Amino acid sequence: MFDCLMHHNSFVRLEAQLKPFADHISPLTITDSEQIGRPWGETATDGLIAYGNADVWFSPASRAFARTLYTAPKLVWFQSSAAGLENPFLQKVGEKAEHYTSSHVQSDAIAEWVLWAAFDWFGNGAQRRDAQARKEWERVHFREISATRWLIFGFGHIGEAVGRRIKGLGGHVTGVRRTGHVSPFADHMLHPDHVSPDDIALADAVLLCAPHTPQTESMADAGFFAAMKEGSLFMNVGRGALVDEGALLAALDRGRPAHAALDVTREEPLSSDSPIWTHPNVTLTAHTSALTSESRARNDELFLENLGNFANGNPLRNRVRREAFEAQMV
Amino acid sequence: MFDCLMHHNSFVRLEAQLKPFADHISPLTITDSEQIGRPWGETATDGLIAYGNADVWFSPASRAFARTLYTAPKLVWFQSSAAGLENPFLQKVGEKAEHYTSSHVQSDAIAEWVLWAAFDWFGNGAQRRDAQARKEWERVHFREISATRWLIFGFGHIGEAVGRRIKGLGGHVTGVRRTGHVSPFADHMLHPDHVSPDDIALADAVLLCAPHTPQTESMADAGFFAAMKEGSLFMNVGRGALVDEGALLAALDRGRPAHAALDVTREEPLSSDSPIWTHPNVTLTAHTSALTSESRARNDELFLENLGNFANGNPLRNRVRREAFEAQMV
Repeated sequence: MFDCLMHHNSFVRLEAQLKPFADHISPLTITDSEQIGRPWGETATDGLIAYGNADVWFSPASRAFARTLYTAPKLVWFQSSAAGLENPFLQKVGEKAEHYTSSHVQSDAIAEWVLWAAFDWFGNGAQRRDAQARKEWERVHFREISATRWLIFGFGHIGEAVGRRIKGLGGHVTGVRRTGHVSPFADHMLHPDHVSPDDIALADAVLLCAPHTPQTESMADAGFFAAMKEGSLFMNVGRGALVDEGALLAALDRGRPAHAALDVTREEPLSSDSPIWTHPNVTLTAHTSALTSESRARNDELFLENLGNFANGNPLRNRVRREAFEAQMV
Repeated sequence: MFDCLMHHNSFVRLEAQLKPFADHISPLTITDSEQIGRPWGETATDGLIAYGNADVWFSPASRAFARTLYTAPKLVWFQSSAAGLENPFLQKVGEKAEHYTSSHVQSDAIAEWVLWAAFDWFGNGAQRRDAQARKEWERVHFREISATRWLIFGFGHIGEAVGRRIKGLGGHVTGVRRTGHVSPFADHMLHPDHVSPDDIALADAVLLCAPHTPQTESMADAGFFAAMKEGSLFMNVGRGALVDEGALLAALDRGRPAHAALDVTREEPLSSDSPIWTHPNVTLTAHTSALTSESRARNDELFLENLGNFANGNPLRNRVRREAFEAQMV
């Protein structure tokens, strides 16, 4: 019998589906106001398992949740709703938990965020809205995604989810990944060490969805941006630390890239005095590219599937080896 | 030898590709300032052929272009860059020309406009931009296209181009067309006479891309909108006359549909005192959903292909029978 920690809202949503595991788990819930609950009353003693999803990470109780994990005598299994491992909190959890499982189900939501940003840039959304605001029946031209070339750094779950959509829309996709393995969702695959300025210069859209490692730290720097094409779009859904933000703003002032769409920044939340907020050629969202109800439902499914595996002694899906945390930067 | 009328810009762009037809055509060009040119100098006598593309329709010289067609002693062939036939000018040309050919190559551009509008609505683009303007690191949720159901009225080239993309993104597509023929780009097909309020109520996105005929005049009326789902998106890329615009604005005030994205209106250009411009739940563009350079290139290709057919006495592609014009409303 294990304590099973999760946000109160997750418990309410999943209670019926948790019932079959009543012999294995004792739910331990936390509300936004840090109220701890034991809705099924029992006390468990074999250790703690926990579900760390958006309900808790976006809650005012996220620190209390983390504290409970850090101070647990025995953290047996942690199910994350994130793919990334390099956040200092997840790092600590990964080092402590006997079993750590990640999630890649946000990929579809994130890919839709990317398409939103790309359609609005290539579709001249800002100019269209401006014409409407001025009540001008204006001839706004636009570019089709069908005619764009993409360069996608990091061709894991997110990169593939984007590549699949762009190819489906008729665009051309070059992926970049360390394994170098070809993918049905890219026309062409490069190894990160072999990406040349010419490869960057060909792309109408450059997307970063790589993890943050010593190799990717500030990979998008002044030289990178200088290679970008006029009129091109730069996007980052990976980590803020992949980008030299000063170099990006200077590059945007020179028009190469012409626009940046960012869902992540080095500092999060971004302080209100950052020039990123107000740069006319930046679209910024608050690390929310995975924030869909579809994504939440897919994470719940994954958690329940792994809970079944856990209860039955089967291998957990998306298990992360402890060494993976040691390879990350803090 | 035929006079071949087109915009000066089209001629400049296509001159090299027109050269092989120098024995068949004598280019007759018109500039935005209505200057008539004969760049190859010769005079032709067997009649007039003409290329009516966006270069002329969006030009200040569009009326002069039309006048030239109306007054030509013999209008042999007219290549349109539009699919629609019911515009009064095209109607006149269709009745006069010996051969009239239409174009469906805008479908891909229009489908991209539809995706732009849909991603921005379901992606909560307005709320994202508003949060950025207020410098608020805000948790903006959104909906995935992957989880939306679409109802598409008019499942010809445009409807299929949209349906293909939505299905590729994981959405569910119901098409509506008179032939009732199934399509690989719809999960389900309805005949227009059999669309019930329940069918409308199921859709997260309703798109009109039907032609304007007596049957489709004001098809989207108060009853139609009353059937729509809360939170749904209404889009029109067909013709303004398909919509009872007063009923649409009243319906938007009641929140069903929640938003309308319109590329066409009854009056075009829309006069500045129309409440459509400023309704907070309307996205409006100026009948420009096909205005891409890719679309222009595809039309040029079609014109050149048909010019080859014309010169060689082969059947013209996309020929429109004269009776089709008589079936249209003026």
